[in-house]
This record gives sequence, C-alpha cells and structure tokens, in this order.
Amino acid sequence: MIPLALTMGDPAGIGPEITAGAWRALRETGPAFIAIIDPACLPVDVPTTENPADFAHALPVKPIKLATSALPGRPDTRNAAAVTQSIERAVAMTQSGEARGVVTNPIAKSVLQDAGFPHPGHTEYLAALTGCAGREIMMLASPMLRVVPVTVHLALRAALDSLSTQAIVAAALTTAAALTQDFGIASPRLAVAGLNPHAGEDGHMGQEEITLIRPAIDMLKAENIGVTGPWPPDAMFTARARTTYDAAICHYHDQALIPLKTLDMDGGVNVTLGLPIVRTSPDHGTAFDIAGRGLADPASLIAAIRLADSIATQRAGKF
Amino acid sequence: MIPLALTMGDPAGIGPEITAGAWRALRETGPAFIAIIDPACLPVDVPTTENPADFAHALPVKPIKLATSALPGRPDTRNAAAVTQSIERAVAMTQSGEARGVVTNPIAKSVLQDAGFPHPGHTEYLAALTGCAGREIMMLASPMLRVVPVTVHLALRAALDSLSTQAIVAAALTTAAALTQDFGIASPRLAVAGLNPHAGEDGHMGQEEITLIRPAIDMLKAENIGVTGPWPPDAMFTARARTTYDAAICHYHDQALIPLKTLDMDGGVNVTLGLPIVRTSPDHGTAFDIAGRGLADPASLIAAIRLADSIATQRAGKF
Repeated sequence: MIPLALTMGDPAGIGPEITAGAWRALRETGPAFIAIIDPACLPVDVPTTENPADFAHALPVKPIKLATSALPGRPDTRNAAAVTQSIERAVAMTQSGEARGVVTNPIAKSVLQDAGFPHPGHTEYLAALTGCAGREIMMLASPMLRVVPVTVHLALRAALDSLSTQAIVAAALTTAAALTQDFGIASPRLAVAGLNPHAGEDGHMGQEEITLIRPAIDMLKAENIGVTGPWPPDAMFTARARTTYDAAICHYHDQALIPLKTLDMDGGVNVTLGLPIVRTSPDHGTAFDIAGRGLADPASLIAAIRLADSIATQRAGKF
Repeated sequence: MIPLALTMGDPAGIGPEITAGAWRALRETGPAFIAIIDPACLPVDVPTTENPADFAHALPVKPIKLATSALPGRPDTRNAAAVTQSIERAVAMTQSGEARGVVTNPIAKSVLQDAGFPHPGHTEYLAALTGCAGREIMMLASPMLRVVPVTVHLALRAALDSLSTQAIVAAALTTAAALTQDFGIASPRLAVAGLNPHAGEDGHMGQEEITLIRPAIDMLKAENIGVTGPWPPDAMFTARARTTYDAAICHYHDQALIPLKTLDMDGGVNVTLGLPIVRTSPDHGTAFDIAGRGLADPASLIAAIRLADSIATQRAGKF
C-alpha cells in the first residue's frame, strides 16, 4: 500500500508528538503514512524505519536533518529550511506517486517568515509548489458540517471589502467539483450564506445579498450547480438545515468557523481544494505552550490522515 | 398566583395558535399567564375565561377588540392599533402589579410601521413605554448558551461602523447586573468576543481588538466585573469554552446568533435586559407562511414563558 506523506511541521511544536500518537493509533488499521521528519525530534520511545511497508511495527520516516536540536516550545528560525524542505519533499513524493497525498503538521508562519519564507501561509505555498497559485480554496470538514470561507485570513472589514461575486462563484465551483471528485457526491448541494443579519431582509439591512451574492447564485445556477441561498446566516447551521446541503459557502472566516467549531471542537479537518494533489491538515496550530509535555491530542491529525486517505481512495476510483 | 401578561402579537401570524398551545402545555403545571388578545382570533376549541385563577380550566383572556377579522397569513394594517394596545396593556398591567412580567408574541414590524408605528421594533417600544429608551439590551438565552449582541439589527458594515468601547461596556454592565438580578448568579463571568479572525492576532488581522475591545475589557475590570477576552470568536462557543462563562458579549448579530441557533434551534428565548419590567419573547417571527394551519410549534413561546417566570421569581426573591 502506498503511504500518505506527513510533513514535520514546526519541530518545536506539538507536531512530533502527535505524529507519534497518530502512528500508535493507526499502526494496526492504517491508513499508513511516512513522516518526513528529523527522527531526533520524535519521542524516544517510538521505533522508526525507512521502510513504509513496516508501518505496523515502526513509524516510517524519510529523514530530514534539522540545523539545530528542536526544543519544545522554543521555535528556532535556523530550522525553517528543514520545515519547508519537508513540505517540498512531501509534495514531490506525491507528484511522483511515491505518496498518495500530503498531510501537513502545523507550522509557525511568523517563524518561517522571519527566516525569509515569502508565502502568506502553508496553503498558498502548496498551491505555488503545484503550479496552482490563486486557485486554492480552504474547506473545513467535520462529520457534521463542511464549510468553505470565501475570504479567510483577513480582518473582518477587509473581508467585506474584498468579497466579490467572482470570488463566491470560484469558491463554489471548486467546492462542487471537489464534493464529486473527493467526496463521491454525484450531485452536490451547496448552501450560500447571506452576509447580513436575516440575509439583509431584501435590502433593508445591507445590500451585499442583492449586489454580490444573488448574482453569484444566479451564475452558479446557470452552470447547473445545485445551490440554495442566500440563507439567513444564523438559520443555516441548525441540525435540520444541515440535512439540506453538502457544503456551506460562507463569506468570512468566523461565519464558517464558528458553527464548525461550535458543533465539533476537535473533529475539524482543513482540506485544500483546487490542487492537483490531495492535502489535508489538522485544524489547530503548533501549540508551543504545551509542546513536549505529552498533553497534545492527536485526534485532529488522525482525522486529517483518515480524510486524506478517503479522498485519495476516491480519486483513485477504489471506493 | 399573579399571572404573566402575554401579548397578542400579529393576529394573522402564529401568535394565536401558539398561545393556545402554550396554555395546553402549561395549564396543569403553570406558570400561569393571561393573554391580552381578541378571543375571536383564537382556535375555536380553546375555552377562555376572564378570571386568571381559572388557568387550569380555561385560557385567561383580557379582551382587545380587533378592527377587522384576522385572516391567518394575511396581516392587515387596520389591526395595528389593537396589536400595539395589547403591548401597552401588558406593560401597564406589569407596572401596576396585576402581572408579573410581559411575554410578547411576534409582531410584523413592517405592518405596524405602515400603520404609523414610529419605533424601530418591539424592544425599543417597550423601552420607550417604561421610560428606558436607549438602555435596552437584547440577550438570547438557551440552556446551553447566553449571548448578548452589542449591535443588533444593522447591516454587518454598519455594525462595524457603530461598534464602540462605550457600547461594549454598557452592554456588559447591563448583562452582569442582569445575570445577578435575573439569573441569580452572584459573581457573573462574562466572555467578550474578538471581532476579527483569531481575535486579530495582536493587530495583524484587524485593529478593533486593540482600539475598541481591550479598552472596554480594561474598563470592565476596573469596575470589578469578572470578564475574559477578547476571545478568538470561533473558539469561544465550544462545549469546553462555554463552561468558563455565564454570558458571551458579541459584537454583531450573527456572531451571537449563529452559535446560539446552531446549538439549539428551538430553545432560544429573547430577553430584554435593562428594563424595570420582566420581558421575554420567543426567538422567531410571525411565520405568516404557516399561520392557521396547525403547524406552528409553541416550544419557543413556552420557553419564553418559563424564563419570564424564573426571572420574575428571582427578582421577587422567592427562589
């Protein structure tokens, strides 16, 4: 079985210990993965191997050499090159067929940027590496809800300024294609949120539903996408409403992330849509404050590995 | 036992039938209420009485005469005067001690305004009637979460423009006082939301946390209010986070309403804080589309009646 490629992430964060935890949880059942990591930063009690077929007995590792020892909770810019090399290696392995997809451990954007990393974040870097810059779309997926924020890491005011019909349509088209290709849903149903309270009450509380969102919905309908909306944002995440769609298209970070995390604090997986390779990641950061203390929960990483496996299997037509 | 006063709401909406449903559900156990309504608009199978003490056997009614028969689903501006009279009567009964508090059935703001009603909404009208204009604060309360939006029925852009340190402090002080007076919480714990993703990441994604929200939190701490924040908005409504506070102070409608309704579609009750009288209402509208067809669920009205009873009891010191 071809493994998934798991990146190192910041070695001073919780990545090494949740990598070990995910291996312990999955060694008997799979899905198998290979960690692209400096074995020196792993917990000492984890056996490692360079043979992916030994997954049941030891954690498969493709070694990357850190510039300096990783101290939990104390990120070091000297290790930035190894962190980005691990990502590049995972992408290359996936492109060559040596791995089925990329699962990324959390990085510390500011640490990498201090070392000269020119990308806004992980996802944009992966898009650049795969020649898809600008086409990447973030989905957060949990067993209860899938959400796609059209704008992501922007101040709320900036998100309102940057929202456009074109961006909504692009996110929705990528989402609909991914629901079929990656999630096996033949006729995806999208729910597009309103932006304003009560979806603007026909222009009485905001104009964006009329000027931006309805035109996007009309364009999507013209492309034969199954789409409803604009929904009153507060009414679209109830249990009853969630049965009527496969993914919610949201306009700003917290409109998507509040319901997702409120429903399922630990189960959210970040999936990058629009790339030629499979890529998932846990929905948390490096957690420097608890790193190295055995407190980190590998649940979200395990969910990310399982979802990458499911998407890779779906894409390969082996479902 | 002194009853609660229940207003008519729009007689063409679901108010009459959920009033009957609430009486059926509560007639044996209480809390008792008296409906200020035209008995002609009630379902024909509901016995009525003018004696509040007969609550177990018939729905107590203080009659208000409609100008024209109410047709379910077809609101009529000729009945607007009766709708507002019912509200005025309920307030007067509560002020005189004839009722313990006001529970309001849903009104159609646009119908009343077409008939010359000069108030932006129900809540503002009640504030004006009790001499508290501008001091009213909306809380949505469910068994799982209490939220207070600092801005309410404004377009999202307008909400951002109108948010101020002063408004946050005023909402939080009123909330803290109400948690003690109305909910019996001796040392209330407030959680103040951030406005931007990740609460702005120290100014990297928006300035409002630094310019507006932290100053408000500092002022509240100086008043000895138990307060935390600014919280990353998507992290503050998880089950774990909710154990750490008694009410969440939110900055815009959907930041408060999305988590509330996502957790509990039907259980939310609207409570007006900052008034001398007790006032609650169900968290839904007139539902003209289903009125008169026996489909309306009285659950939210029943929750509103129970919460008004609890608050009135708390204020009277009988807990």
